[in-house]
Amino acid sequence: MKITPKVKEILSWYESDNPGTKANLARILGHGRLGGTGQLVILPVDQGFEHGPARSFAPNPAAYDPRYHFQMAIDAGLSAYASVLGMIEAGADTFAGQVPLILKMNSSNSMSRAKEDADQAVTASIDDALRLGCSAIGFTIYPGSDAAFDQMEEIRELTAEAKAAGLAVVMWSYPRGGTISKEGETGFDVVAYAAHMAALLGAHIIKVKLPSAHIEQAEAKKVYEAQKIDASSQAARVKHVVQACFGGRRIVVFSGGATKSEDSVFDDARAILAGGGNGSIIGRNTFQRSREDAHKLLDTLVKIYLGETA
Amino acid sequence: MKITPKVKEILSWYESDNPGTKANLARILGHGRLGGTGQLVILPVDQGFEHGPARSFAPNPAAYDPRYHFQMAIDAGLSAYASVLGMIEAGADTFAGQVPLILKMNSSNSMSRAKEDADQAVTASIDDALRLGCSAIGFTIYPGSDAAFDQMEEIRELTAEAKAAGLAVVMWSYPRGGTISKEGETGFDVVAYAAHMAALLGAHIIKVKLPSAHIEQAEAKKVYEAQKIDASSQAARVKHVVQACFGGRRIVVFSGGATKSEDSVFDDARAILAGGGNGSIIGRNTFQRSREDAHKLLDTLVKIYLGETA
Amino acid sequence: MKITPKVKEILSWYESDNPGTKANLARILGHGRLGGTGQLVILPVDQGFEHGPARSFAPNPAAYDPRYHFQMAIDAGLSAYASVLGMIEAGADTFAGQVPLILKMNSSNSMSRAKEDADQAVTASIDDALRLGCSAIGFTIYPGSDAAFDQMEEIRELTAEAKAAGLAVVMWSYPRGGTISKEGETGFDVVAYAAHMAALLGAHIIKVKLPSAHIEQAEAKKVYEAQKIDASSQAARVKHVVQACFGGRRIVVFSGGATKSEDSVFDDARAILAGGGNGSIIGRNTFQRSREDAHKLLDTLVKIYLGETA
Amino acid sequence: MKITPKVKEILSWYESDNPGTKANLARILGHGRLGGTGQLVILPVDQGFEHGPARSFAPNPAAYDPRYHFQMAIDAGLSAYASVLGMIEAGADTFAGQVPLILKMNSSNSMSRAKEDADQAVTASIDDALRLGCSAIGFTIYPGSDAAFDQMEEIRELTAEAKAAGLAVVMWSYPRGGTISKEGETGFDVVAYAAHMAALLGAHIIKVKLPSAHIEQAEAKKVYEAQKIDASSQAARVKHVVQACFGGRRIVVFSGGATKSEDSVFDDARAILAGGGNGSIIGRNTFQRSREDAHKLLDTLVKIYLGETA
Amino acid sequence: MKITPKVKEILSWYESDNPGTKANLARILGHGRLGGTGQLVILPVDQGFEHGPARSFAPNPAAYDPRYHFQMAIDAGLSAYASVLGMIEAGADTFAGQVPLILKMNSSNSMSRAKEDADQAVTASIDDALRLGCSAIGFTIYPGSDAAFDQMEEIRELTAEAKAAGLAVVMWSYPRGGTISKEGETGFDVVAYAAHMAALLGAHIIKVKLPSAHIEQAEAKKVYEAQKIDASSQAARVKHVVQACFGGRRIVVFSGGATKSEDSVFDDARAILAGGGNGSIIGRNTFQRSREDAHKLLDTLVKIYLGETA
Repeated sequence: MKITPKVKEILSWYESDNPGTKANLARILGHGRLGGTGQLVILPVDQGFEHGPARSFAPNPAAYDPRYHFQMAIDAGLSAYASVLGMIEAGADTFAGQVPLILKMNSSNSMSRAKEDADQAVTASIDDALRLGCSAIGFTIYPGSDAAFDQMEEIRELTAEAKAAGLAVVMWSYPRGGTISKEGETGFDVVAYAAHMAALLGAHIIKVKLPSAHIEQAEAKKVYEAQKIDASSQAARVKHVVQACFGGRRIVVFSGGATKSEDSVFDDARAILAGGGNGSIIGRNTFQRSREDAHKLLDTLVKIYLGETA
Repeated sequence: MKITPKVKEILSWYESDNPGTKANLARILGHGRLGGTGQLVILPVDQGFEHGPARSFAPNPAAYDPRYHFQMAIDAGLSAYASVLGMIEAGADTFAGQVPLILKMNSSNSMSRAKEDADQAVTASIDDALRLGCSAIGFTIYPGSDAAFDQMEEIRELTAEAKAAGLAVVMWSYPRGGTISKEGETGFDVVAYAAHMAALLGAHIIKVKLPSAHIEQAEAKKVYEAQKIDASSQAARVKHVVQACFGGRRIVVFSGGATKSEDSVFDDARAILAGGGNGSIIGRNTFQRSREDAHKLLDTLVKIYLGETA
Repeated sequence: MKITPKVKEILSWYESDNPGTKANLARILGHGRLGGTGQLVILPVDQGFEHGPARSFAPNPAAYDPRYHFQMAIDAGLSAYASVLGMIEAGADTFAGQVPLILKMNSSNSMSRAKEDADQAVTASIDDALRLGCSAIGFTIYPGSDAAFDQMEEIRELTAEAKAAGLAVVMWSYPRGGTISKEGETGFDVVAYAAHMAALLGAHIIKVKLPSAHIEQAEAKKVYEAQKIDASSQAARVKHVVQACFGGRRIVVFSGGATKSEDSVFDDARAILAGGGNGSIIGRNTFQRSREDAHKLLDTLVKIYLGETA
Repeated sequence: MKITPKVKEILSWYESDNPGTKANLARILGHGRLGGTGQLVILPVDQGFEHGPARSFAPNPAAYDPRYHFQMAIDAGLSAYASVLGMIEAGADTFAGQVPLILKMNSSNSMSRAKEDADQAVTASIDDALRLGCSAIGFTIYPGSDAAFDQMEEIRELTAEAKAAGLAVVMWSYPRGGTISKEGETGFDVVAYAAHMAALLGAHIIKVKLPSAHIEQAEAKKVYEAQKIDASSQAARVKHVVQACFGGRRIVVFSGGATKSEDSVFDDARAILAGGGNGSIIGRNTFQRSREDAHKLLDTLVKIYLGETA
Repeated sequence: MKITPKVKEILSWYESDNPGTKANLARILGHGRLGGTGQLVILPVDQGFEHGPARSFAPNPAAYDPRYHFQMAIDAGLSAYASVLGMIEAGADTFAGQVPLILKMNSSNSMSRAKEDADQAVTASIDDALRLGCSAIGFTIYPGSDAAFDQMEEIRELTAEAKAAGLAVVMWSYPRGGTISKEGETGFDVVAYAAHMAALLGAHIIKVKLPSAHIEQAEAKKVYEAQKIDASSQAARVKHVVQACFGGRRIVVFSGGATKSEDSVFDDARAILAGGGNGSIIGRNTFQRSREDAHKLLDTLVKIYLGETA
C-alpha cells in the first residue's frame, strides 16, 4: 500500500473524519497499480440487479460466478471492487484482504417499472459491510426523483453509521425521475449539481456519469452563459464537475456506461485525467469482454492514468 | 444426518456464513432419504393462507390437522417441512427434532384483491423461528410488483437477523404485479432474473417456478437470441436458471404448482435433475392426494432424485 | 377453577406455548359456571367505540357505568369479560381476580367513514394488559380489507409480545372491505377462511360470526360443490368452520350480532354446541336488556352449553 | 391544596392509576378558588397555533407575552393553565409551582388547508412535560377525520407514557373531517360520542364543545327518539354528555368557543353546573378582553361554580 | 466573548433551557464585532443545495471551496456561520473554535419539482452537530405546506434532542405550498404567523423573510384592519413580527434574499434595527460578491447594527 504525499494530501481534505475512515480511504487510494497516484480504477458489478443475469453475463458466461470479478479486480491491479450483498458474500472469505471492497447498499432493477419517484431498495447494512471486511459502502441517489428526499435521508443515516464505524462512503449520484428529461440526466449543469449534492451529503468518493454539453435547467443556463463556463470539451466539463465538488477537494470518479469500443473507453479516461477527475468506474466494459480482452483493456486504462501512454 | 463430500462442497459455496447457519443448512441437506445427495424434496404447506382451508384441505380432510403434514414429511423421508406460524406452532413440540423446519415468514391470501403493488403480510419473526426450533426462514418476494422494493428491504432485515442467529434463508422469488404479464410470471428470462435477485439478496436456497419458453422483456429477448441461450426443453431452461444463480453455486429448487398427474410431477423432477437443479418443493400435489397416494408419489419422486428410477 | 381432563386436552392443542400462557387459557376455560366443560360464554363490551354511547347503553342506562358489566359477568358466572382500555381501567381494581379479563386492543367507530381499507385504531398495549391483570388480549382483523396485511402485521407483533408475557390471544376475524360483498361478510366460505387465517396467525381463541349458506368466492364455490361440504344447517356450517381451525384443535366462539329474540340466541347456541363450537360471545343481547332479563337469558344460555336444557 | 371528600370521590373513579397520576389530578382538583369543589376553570392558550398571533393577541397586546397568561391564571385563582411547548417554556421557571400546568401536545394551524383527514402536529413529548413541571398532558383528537385512527394511536402511546410517569391526561375531543357536517361538529349525538371515545381511550379529563340540539347520525337519531333522550336545554344536553362518560365517573369540561358576551359565558357555566359538568375551559373569552375585564369575568365565573351567584 | 447585561437579559428569556444551551446561545451572542450588543449578523451557505453549485458560486469561484466561507465569517467578525453537513465537515477542524457554527439539518433543492407538500430532506443529525463542534442546529419549516405537520414533528424531535445536548435551535420559518400564494409567502400576516409558530415550537433564534405589506388571509385581514396594525414601513412590519415572537422575548433575524444593491442591504438592516429585530442572515449578498466587496459590505452592515453609521 503506497501512502504517498499525494494520498496524504487527499486524506487532508477529509479533516472531520476519524482515523478508521481515513485508513480505509488510504487502503483504496494506496492499493493496486494506481496506488499512491490519487487516481482510481474501480470495478463495479451491480448489473445483475439492474439488468438481470443474462443481459449482464451471458456475453461472457464465466462472469456468472461471483469469484470471477474478485479475481479480475485483483489480477488487473484495480483500486477496489464494488458489488452487492450476495456477490460480496460469495467471495469475501476466499479473497479476504486481497482487494478493497465497496459494498453497494441499494439497487434498482429493470423488472420494476420506471416511475417519477424512481427509487432503489436498500439491500444491505453497515453490519454487513463490517462483517464482510469492506472498506467502504456505496449508495445511489436519484436527484430530481420524487423519492430523492427519502433517499437522502437513507444515505444520511447510513453515512453517519459508516463514518462512526470507520468506513468510507461512495455515492453514485444519478439524476433521474421527477421532471428531469432523458437528455437532462447527463446534462452538464445537472451532473455538476448532482455531484455537488453528494459532496454536501458527506460523500468521500463521488461517482457521476460523464456530462454532455446539454444544459437542462433554465435558471442554470443563464448563469452558465453569463459566467462563460467552458463546456466545449469532455475535459472542460470534467473540470467543472470537479470544481463543483468543493473546488476539487473531493474524489470524483466517472462511470463508463454501456459496452463500447476500447478507444472510447480510453478517450474518456484521457478526458477525465485532463479535467482533474480521479478516475474511472468501469463495469460492463470489463466483464462483458472475455477475460483476456478485459485484462488488456484494463491494462491500457491503468497505463493512461499512470501517464505511461498518451 | 449424512454430511457427505457433496454436502461439504455445497456448504463451501456459502463461505461468508457463520457455523450456526452452515449447521442448519447441513441439517436440511443431510436429512431424510435424499440426505447427502445435494438434492432436496421439501413439503410446503402455506396454501391455507393463499387459497383458504376448503380449497386446500377439503379434498383430503385429514390434512386440516397440522400434525398430518409433519408426519407426512417425516414418514416420506423428505428434506424439510415449510409452513406458517400457526401450523408450525401446532406441531413443533410433538415432532421436535424429527424433521428440519422452515418457518414461512410472510403470506398473501386470496381474500385480498390483486393489485399492481402485490404484497404479503409478514406474520412471524426470527424469534418465532428460534423458539420453535426451525432451521431456516422462508420469505416470498414479488419482483416486478410496485411493492418489491419494500419486500426486499423487509427480507434484508430478516435475512441479516436470521444469519446472525445461525438460521438459513429460503427465498420464494415469484415475479408478479407491476407491468409483468400473466404469461411473463413464468417467462424464461423473468424466472432467471427473479432467481438471480434472490441470490443477490443473500438467499441460501432459492425457490422459483419452472420457467416456460416465453421471453417477457424486450431488452432481454435481444440477448437471449444473440447469445443463443437454449430454451428448447425444461431441462435446458432449468440449467439456465441454475447458472443465473452464481454459476450454479446456490441451491435452487422448483415448485410444482397446482395439482396435476403423477407423470407430470415426475417429468418435472427429471428435468430439474437433468438441468442441475437441487430438487422440488411440492405442496398441493402431496396433501391434496390421499395419504397413501401421496406417500406413493413422494416415494417415486425421491427415487428419481436418487437416480433409482429413470 | 376447574382444570378437568377436557381442559387439559384443550391446553394440549397449544403445545408451543409457555406455561404462563397456558395458565391464562386455563383460567378462562376453568372459570365460571361453564368452567371445565370446554365451553365458553364471554361478555364483550366494545360497542361504545363501534356504535357510540347512546346506541349502546341508552336502552339500559345502568350500563353506562363500566362497573355494571364486570358485575354482570361475575354474577352470571360467565367465562370472561372483554372490553377496551377505558372500560377495563374503570373496574379492574374493584373486581381484581373475580373474572378473567380480555383487553380488546383495537377498535373502529361509526363516526369514521367506511372505506375499502377498513381498519381499526390500536388503543392499548401489552403493558396495559399486564398492569390491569388481564388474562388475554383481543384483536380484530378485517380479512379482505385493503388494510388487512397491515392489521396482520400489527397482530403478529402484539401476539408475539403477548405470548412472551404469558397472555392468551383472542382474534376477532371479520371479513370486510376490499371486494367482499355485504352478504359475503358472513358467507360460509369466507367465515371459514377468516377463522382459518386467525389460526394461522397464532390465535388461541378465534371469534367469528355465524356463517350463512352463501358462498362468496367463485374458486371456493367449485370446491364446496365438488366436495359436497354440508351447508344445510347452522350446526353443519359451524362444524365446517371448526374443522377449518386445525381440524378442531383451536377454540372457536361465535358472536351473536344485533339484539334479537331470546329464542334466536338459544337456537344459535344449540347450533354452536351441535357443530362442535366452543361457545358464544354475546354483548348487545346482554347489556341492552334490563339487568334481570339479561341474567335470565344468560342463565338459560349457560344451561344450554351445560346440556341442562334442550 | 384542598383534598376534600369530593376530590377523594373523584380520584376513586380512576382506580387503575398510580399514586403519581392521582397526585397530579389532586393538584388540579385541589388548586385555586375552586379547589376541593370538583369544579374546574382552566385557562387554555393554544390559539397562537390555531389562528395566529394577531388574531389571538392583537385585541389585547399584553397577551403576546407568555408570562401574561401564567399571571392571569394565578391571579384569578384558576384550576390550571394549559398551553403549547414554547409558551410553557417561556414561563415555567418564573412561575414554578404556582399553578398546575397542562402541556398541550399537539396543534393545528389555519395556515394549513382544511382536509378530510384533518390532523394536528405533535409538538411536544412526555419528557418535555416532566422537565417543565407539568401536571398533565393535553391532546386533541378529531373523531370522524380520516386521520382519527392515527391520532388515537398517537394518544394511546402518549397516554401510556404519561400514566407511567405519573401525569394526568386531558383529551380535547373535537369531531371534524371525514363525512361530518359543519353543524354536526357540535351535534348532540356527536359530542356525546366524542366524549365517550375519549373516556374509552383512557382520558382523565375530557374536554368537548357544548352540544347543540342537532342530531347528526341517522342510526343515532332512531335511538335518541326511541329512548326520548332530553335535548331540550343546554343543561339537559350537558347531562347526557356527562352520562356518556362512564355514567358520570369521568371529569368533563366544556369549552367556550369564540369571544362572546359575558352573559353568554355565564349562561353556559350555569348550564354546565346544572347538567353535572365539571366546569369550563375558557381561552379567547379571557385573553381577548383587557386584563381588568378578564379578571372581572373570571371572578364571576368562579363564583357561579362556587354557587355564590345565581 | 462579551457577556454583557444585554446578553444576560436575552438569555433570561430562555428560562427553561439548561446551562449548556444557554452557554451556546451566549457564544453566538457574545462572538464577533457585534458580540454583546444583542444584534447578530450570520453567514448562511446552503445555496449549493437550494440552487446548485454554478448558480451559487460561479460568480465568485473562490467560494466553491468550503474553507472560503469559514474564513469570510471569521475575518468579517460575524456572529456565526451556518451551513450543511458536507460544507461544515470540510472546515470544522481547520477553523475549530474560531467562529460559532450552526449545522443546517435539512435542505431542499431545485432539481426536485415544486409541490403542494413542499418539503426538505433531513441531511444531518444531532450527533453530527456535536462531533463537529457546532453551537446550534438550524432547521427549515414550510408553514402552509401539506408537509408542514410532518416537518413540525421532525423539528420537535431534533429540538428536544438538541436542547438535551446543550445546543441552541435556529428555525427558518418560510411559508410555502398548500394554498399559500406566491405573494403570500412574504405577506405581513403570514410572516408574523410563521415567526410565531417557530417560537411556539421552541426555537431560540427565529429566521424569517422581511415581510411585505400584503395581507394573505381573509380572517387575519379583518383583525389587522380592526386593530390598525401598522404596515406602513419595513420597520413597522419588523416591529409587529418581533412582537409576534412572545412580545419581543425571542431572537428574530431576517434574511436578505437574492443578490441586490448594497444600498438595499443597508436599508433592510436599518429597518430591522429600527423595528427591534436582532439582525441579518445574509448569504448570497456576501459570497456572490468578490471577497473584497463582501468584506466592505459586511463591514458597513456591522457598523449599522453597531450604530456607528446612520
